[in-house]
Amino acid sequence: MPLTRRELIQNGAVGAAALAVGGVIGKNLPGGKEEEAASQGATGLAGQAQKVADARKLSPDDVTRAVKTFVAPGNQHGDEFFLFSSGGHSGQVFVIGVPSLRLLKIIGVFTPEPWQGHGYGSDSSSPVIKAGTSNPASGMLTWGDTHHPAFSETKGEYDGRYCYINDRANGRIAMIDLRDFKTKQILDVPNLQSSHGGVFVTQDTEYVHISTKTPTLVDMSKADGALDRFPDAFRGYSTFLAVDKKGRFDMARSFQVELPPYTQDLSDSGKLVSHGWVFLNSYNSEMAAGGNMEGKPAIETGASKGDYDFMHVINWKKAVELVAAGKTMTINGMRVVTLETAAAEGVLYLAPEPRSPHGVDVSPNGAYLVVAGKLDPHVTVYGWDKVQKAIAAKDFSGKDRYGVPILKFDSVVSGQVEVGGGPLHTQFDENGYGYTSLFVESAVAKWSLGEPYFKGDKALKLVDKVSVQYNIGHLVAMEGDTVKPQGKYLVALNKWSIDRFPTVGTLKPQNFQLVDLTGEKMNILSDTPIGMGEPHYVQAIRADRIKAWEVYPVGTNPLTMEKDPNAIELGKERVERKGTTVEVWASVKRSNFKPDNLVVKKGDRVIMHLTNTETTPDATHGFAIPRYNINCSLDPGEVTTVDFIASEAGAFAFYCTEFCSALHLEMQGWLMVTS
Amino acid sequence: MPLTRRELIQNGAVGAAALAVGGVIGKNLPGGKEEEAASQGATGLAGQAQKVADARKLSPDDVTRAVKTFVAPGNQHGDEFFLFSSGGHSGQVFVIGVPSLRLLKIIGVFTPEPWQGHGYGSDSSSPVIKAGTSNPASGMLTWGDTHHPAFSETKGEYDGRYCYINDRANGRIAMIDLRDFKTKQILDVPNLQSSHGGVFVTQDTEYVHISTKTPTLVDMSKADGALDRFPDAFRGYSTFLAVDKKGRFDMARSFQVELPPYTQDLSDSGKLVSHGWVFLNSYNSEMAAGGNMEGKPAIETGASKGDYDFMHVINWKKAVELVAAGKTMTINGMRVVTLETAAAEGVLYLAPEPRSPHGVDVSPNGAYLVVAGKLDPHVTVYGWDKVQKAIAAKDFSGKDRYGVPILKFDSVVSGQVEVGGGPLHTQFDENGYGYTSLFVESAVAKWSLGEPYFKGDKALKLVDKVSVQYNIGHLVAMEGDTVKPQGKYLVALNKWSIDRFPTVGTLKPQNFQLVDLTGEKMNILSDTPIGMGEPHYVQAIRADRIKAWEVYPVGTNPLTMEKDPNAIELGKERVERKGTTVEVWASVKRSNFKPDNLVVKKGDRVIMHLTNTETTPDATHGFAIPRYNINCSLDPGEVTTVDFIASEAGAFAFYCTEFCSALHLEMQGWLMVTS
Repeated sequence: MPLTRRELIQNGAVGAAALAVGGVIGKNLPGGKEEEAASQGATGLAGQAQKVADARKLSPDDVTRAVKTFVAPGNQHGDEFFLFSSGGHSGQVFVIGVPSLRLLKIIGVFTPEPWQGHGYGSDSSSPVIKAGTSNPASGMLTWGDTHHPAFSETKGEYDGRYCYINDRANGRIAMIDLRDFKTKQILDVPNLQSSHGGVFVTQDTEYVHISTKTPTLVDMSKADGALDRFPDAFRGYSTFLAVDKKGRFDMARSFQVELPPYTQDLSDSGKLVSHGWVFLNSYNSEMAAGGNMEGKPAIETGASKGDYDFMHVINWKKAVELVAAGKTMTINGMRVVTLETAAAEGVLYLAPEPRSPHGVDVSPNGAYLVVAGKLDPHVTVYGWDKVQKAIAAKDFSGKDRYGVPILKFDSVVSGQVEVGGGPLHTQFDENGYGYTSLFVESAVAKWSLGEPYFKGDKALKLVDKVSVQYNIGHLVAMEGDTVKPQGKYLVALNKWSIDRFPTVGTLKPQNFQLVDLTGEKMNILSDTPIGMGEPHYVQAIRADRIKAWEVYPVGTNPLTMEKDPNAIELGKERVERKGTTVEVWASVKRSNFKPDNLVVKKGDRVIMHLTNTETTPDATHGFAIPRYNINCSLDPGEVTTVDFIASEAGAFAFYCTEFCSALHLEMQGWLMVTS
Repeated sequence: MPLTRRELIQNGAVGAAALAVGGVIGKNLPGGKEEEAASQGATGLAGQAQKVADARKLSPDDVTRAVKTFVAPGNQHGDEFFLFSSGGHSGQVFVIGVPSLRLLKIIGVFTPEPWQGHGYGSDSSSPVIKAGTSNPASGMLTWGDTHHPAFSETKGEYDGRYCYINDRANGRIAMIDLRDFKTKQILDVPNLQSSHGGVFVTQDTEYVHISTKTPTLVDMSKADGALDRFPDAFRGYSTFLAVDKKGRFDMARSFQVELPPYTQDLSDSGKLVSHGWVFLNSYNSEMAAGGNMEGKPAIETGASKGDYDFMHVINWKKAVELVAAGKTMTINGMRVVTLETAAAEGVLYLAPEPRSPHGVDVSPNGAYLVVAGKLDPHVTVYGWDKVQKAIAAKDFSGKDRYGVPILKFDSVVSGQVEVGGGPLHTQFDENGYGYTSLFVESAVAKWSLGEPYFKGDKALKLVDKVSVQYNIGHLVAMEGDTVKPQGKYLVALNKWSIDRFPTVGTLKPQNFQLVDLTGEKMNILSDTPIGMGEPHYVQAIRADRIKAWEVYPVGTNPLTMEKDPNAIELGKERVERKGTTVEVWASVKRSNFKPDNLVVKKGDRVIMHLTNTETTPDATHGFAIPRYNINCSLDPGEVTTVDFIASEAGAFAFYCTEFCSALHLEMQGWLMVTS
């Protein structure tokens, strides 16, 4: 029994926020009326097609929607954009085409994924996942909570080389190589127990930024009573990870800026005029730590007491100078500009924000910082020129308890726009409009930026609103967080889908809604269920910016993208035994493994180097060993190594797991483990 | 650089089969010409919509395709059917709507999936996955190769209660409950090292059938030289698993039939007139075991020497009588009707099939058994009446080396239809047509069955063919393997997609193509990339047959679907310490956990019972503990228990991983582990 939006609200779906924002709801909620009517004219279909449309209950506007989103079979380039969507607590990244919203691939990142062989080549040959756990409390970390993908950029535009993404749960970050869409590195970032703070890159990918979400207990051995000493015992960290020429994190050139133990939240990089700075907001500057069983305020109450929280304004170019000058302290292997140094040297300032803010988003020209706070119906627009002037003039209202200067709200804010209930995040188009998600109101607001986009009373004005279904978190416009937004489409990342899809059990899909930005009014084009994770943020890149490989040159190890020293040519297969180690150099092609018989003794260590000698695109082979928890994907030309102890005696029919040819079923061999 | 089909064939994509079937290719391949033209009349669109169609390169037929597949936003029931697709070596099941082909959900089955919390509640609270590994060689088995989903049936129709699926890699089977779309049981089936053989259910779900794929070495401690003693050392097993009232496997009532060590392949259950029997084909009756490094024939050659392989014709009702009479041997806890008994007592017969067959599919009325062999361009249709007569008359051509009677080919075959290159699998519609996938030819053939569907020269006749892109394996028509096919649509499960989608790296998606069955000719409607696994088989069920729950009654444990003894009401939260064990009964609701502070000592065992007290559909909460590899999904009303050792000291901010409300970010607490 799906509920209407009104019932949903009555039942408390919008939770405490419904109470917290009070009047806003009454004023802005559409009251259950769906405002989806498309603005296009009626569509006439001929004959058979019209009958089908009638039978399938498609209105003329729906037919236009179909035409706007359908990609004809065989049209390889019918999708203009790729969404790279975080998978939330699935731990993965989803690649989705726009406008079809077809799922092109799930990339295994923090969670093992056997179709890709990601993490199933035995421990020793799952080096990416293994290296991603520096200090596991309970074995390897085998999941993550992916939140914010960030493409590498050149001059503020996506350059299609790499995609970075954080693990919000465990304070980690991963790098995906866009030549083969595979995860090449997971870094367990020092001093972060959890993460948020982007991920974003600076405009020429000088640094990849990731920060703490919940602050870190500085001395993990002193947890006793630490919540009572919260302001002293905990700290946040803003991390600037340098990357090398292969897109990997280079710890030797990386550093952190220590932050107050507020809960650092979303953030964005300065662009063009604001290049060299980053903006990182926070909530819970009250530093509430809960204790609801002990009669203390619950965190959600304690964290919402103050009228203002703070945006951190960080001069990273200045921080780089301090690092070069050695003005750092090394903590857990990471050079850290301390809070004291950052405050004293002009690296860190705070700008007040309406309480419990969520997003901060920098306009395409870098001149505006747009903040939205879910408990305030406005977006607040900070002018970068004003921020600069206030910093130069030391126009401060005071300092926080850590000595960080606080800019005067009125000195740095250009204006506010009342957009509606529960504004969270803003993206931009190419024409100077901002699009802000409204969580409580379940809508997207379109509003105009200031000069040079719009002047006078045309600036900072709400111009359109569209209802979405339901409870939108992030949203993404095409390349809508870069210096060169592409417009056309927007995707609403809705958290609730109650009555939009057939019931597939108690755990419901999310709902990605595609919104047409080409008309006067925004127009919902389609609903797409996301039933394999809970995407948090998405970046959308023009498909033609990514130059992916069709095949590897034969003998390539994807981890290095270079020739693997254990690659072999056909006819060079061999088996070598040294003591209790059996090392095998095997070829893999349609339709056999060579060798196809392998006899070892129970307890032997078996190292198998597998070379897929195929050069044909899509001629992928799998390699699985029953009962040994091993499965690899060998794409054309790929080399991989599996390494395991033959711990169970018997006959194990290894086989190709990817349907490769008419004789695929016969593509198997026997691992014989004698006792 | 995508290749054309012709180039693909020249490059050897169709492998050895291209040579093996020789002339068939030349005769039937469309030679690179796409024969997709839809048969509907031209479609006229008005104004703006026509401009969009032109800009997006949609022909009038493409517009009709769009109208036939698009589900309007907000049309909850626009998808008439669900596909339950195996995920192949992803180990999961994909639920996809038809005709939109939108992915509604990925169900975690053999592979842990953190969004659903499947396998991430620490070992002790991941009982399904843990119980699914009876004798692991290298820790828990954490992946599978899902091949054949099978819905429970009543009177030969899907009844929407359960879905069973095998792990081809490790010889296991799982049960998914369709009330909540969750995996409730994984059974490591005795005597199977790998599996195929269905999965199918008998027509009233008396049994769920699963068999060996590669045969099992009977004495696993004697692997030395076993490949040289293959015919004696190995055996196959046909497994009949009884299920209880909750759909779970009941070992006490289950049994196996021992089979010759051929490689048992696909199979199907008798229906209506053939109820009580199952049909299981096999290849490699040559029992080739390879040895390509030792100069022996490679398996793919050795397994294709003979002109015929065998379909196993098994009288399971007779086997049940033998089991009841105690005429079994117990092997690894399973009662087994031995090969000798099966042959002697009329349980097992062999029917010759053209060499290296793949599918055997029983027609809706149960009267025809359709076999296709990839090395023969025909489908071979066996008449159930003929099989019965031949068995009654002992019309045998001899016995195999194990004493199993071999039926005479000419006595049991009703006829053959030349359908084209590399036929694999057949599905049926409601009008007496069979649809056969052609792997080598990359096409689907439509042909007519015999009486009572079609008579005389209208029967067993090829009537249509459509090209698919590319290299189709299985195919599925709506409820097309039941006694009551629904027609309308067919989905081609194509293994190669080379030039159909933008390049997303060296590992390409598969291509599900939706085919319209309502017209005179078959017509491709859409291409859908499957980039998260390699689906093997799919069943398609009418959406209205499944009655899924929206929420659990508060306090439900999904594993029992009953009230969990550790469920609590709001206000009854408590923490109890006994020695070094800390047990917590916590509530979970918007927007807090209670308790939100939990202090334990390093080394303590922590048991947390979490009750989601929400009653609103979609009010799901997650529960994650950083660094402890724990993440649960608590759907509305759900109770789960996590159980772990607090092995790392420090402060860990546990939090809700599912965006639940405006104060979701504040929904966290602190696990303090003191040293």
